[in-house]
Amino acid sequence: MSRREEMASKYFHCNIRERAAFEAGIKLGTIYHQFVGTPVASSNVASLEKAIEEGVMVQPFVEDVKVNIDRTQLREKKNEFDYQSLTGSMISVELTIRVGEVLTIAVMRYIEELNYPLMYIKEIREQVEE
Amino acid sequence: MSRREEMASKYFHCNIRERAAFEAGIKLGTIYHQFVGTPVASSNVASLEKAIEEGVMVQPFVEDVKVNIDRTQLREKKNEFDYQSLTGSMISVELTIRVGEVLTIAVMRYIEELNYPLMYIKEIREQVEE
Amino acid sequence: MSRREEMASKYFHCNIRERAAFEAGIKLGTIYHQFVGTPVASSNVASLEKAIEEGVMVQPFVEDVKVNIDRTQLREKKNEFDYQSLTGSMISVELTIRVGEVLTIAVMRYIEELNYPLMYIKEIREQVEE
Amino acid sequence: MSRREEMASKYFHCNIRERAAFEAGIKLGTIYHQFVGTPVASSNVASLEKAIEEGVMVQPFVEDVKVNIDRTQLREKKNEFDYQSLTGSMISVELTIRVGEVLTIAVMRYIEELNYPLMYIKEIREQVEE
Repeated sequence: MSRREEMASKYFHCNIRERAAFEAGIKLGTIYHQFVGTPVASSNVASLEKAIEEGVMVQPFVEDVKVNIDRTQLREKKNEFDYQSLTGSMISVELTIRVGEVLTIAVMRYIEELNYPLMYIKEIREQVEE
Repeated sequence: MSRREEMASKYFHCNIRERAAFEAGIKLGTIYHQFVGTPVASSNVASLEKAIEEGVMVQPFVEDVKVNIDRTQLREKKNEFDYQSLTGSMISVELTIRVGEVLTIAVMRYIEELNYPLMYIKEIREQVEE
Repeated sequence: MSRREEMASKYFHCNIRERAAFEAGIKLGTIYHQFVGTPVASSNVASLEKAIEEGVMVQPFVEDVKVNIDRTQLREKKNEFDYQSLTGSMISVELTIRVGEVLTIAVMRYIEELNYPLMYIKEIREQVEE
Repeated sequence: MSRREEMASKYFHCNIRERAAFEAGIKLGTIYHQFVGTPVASSNVASLEKAIEEGVMVQPFVEDVKVNIDRTQLREKKNEFDYQSLTGSMISVELTIRVGEVLTIAVMRYIEELNYPLMYIKEIREQVEE
């Protein structure tokens, strides 16, 4: 652990699993509110997914991330004016956060029965080294 | 607990304290990435603080929030062009999240020794009813 | 005209009406992409309108602005999870930009026959002093 | 001109050069306020530039765009916590808008003597077909 990480850690009054959950929440809130509203069409959907993923990867504690934008919600572009803005219900994200030995897998995806994009914790586990 | 909350809860595989930490992280990531970049000057700083606070209050599980934008970082406006964009180091937030009986108090503020705005958990506690 | 405005003006290669149109476009693009995605419900809609208006007013060349968020698109809040994000089709804006003696009135509003929020110039006129 | 473009055009009360200037302003305001705040480091700077460019290209009337993020402002990443958020002074953009036969070239870049990122019109010209 670097000196700077040690300095930051002393501000936290919770256990490592709770901190991993907190860090996962920050990243999902970030993705949603940074990128919702971005112009999106079939021509740029792949580069947008990649940019979101790489933007998440530079943040602390991110071990892995997969972003998917639902192509079926992108209309065929019919004319000059016809583009869309990215909405929460188009994006799904699966994110792995590691703090120390704790891995948290968190998900954001549109849930039909709820009718909105839910952010949730799919799993928290301690990684056992062999 | 409403039927819809029950539906959402079944997606979570973690305990209530971890969920409260996760929800707190979401809200701080949201504030940072929704509002950084907003035009700010001494004339609108109070209404911006209020709008951020009220925007947070409509989100799930938020019990309380206090947002402060550091006036000392706002330059005297000298001319037509002189306005600023809100930066992470101008904002401090203290947020209380409640999930069931668990209260999480989370903070975002600029930490001098780290030289960046840190998001951290100040306290997680179970509320004991008398 | 201040020294700083003079310095900025020399970068522009267009007439004053074109510049006023350009400045109006900047402000509408700013409103849309800064605030779309913000959490909104009937409890914070008024403070959000006010914050957007005051945020626009601090930008250069803005003479006046009126922001309206369509209350009929805000669902009745049924439970903890039920909040919405601001969308482009909820907002309407009327904006007056002044550059020198030229006034530009620009509008953003949802147009039913187009099925999207259109940004357009309603009027450009020279103000005649008496 | 498509039927939809005709429908949109009737809302505009200005000439084509003014409209081209307006559309250019919209795109620069969009870039600034959509992407300022995005996590950026040397590892994702290229994919972020590409995503901004492709996001602009899907918008109406955009003929060409070049986005550059200044690498010299990206710190060497020293540890887990050390990432930055994109600021206005890191980005420069050159954008070509075409409305009918009118081309507008607009620029956003940090201007040292002004000490802020200026958005300006570099050129408006009618394209003469041979």
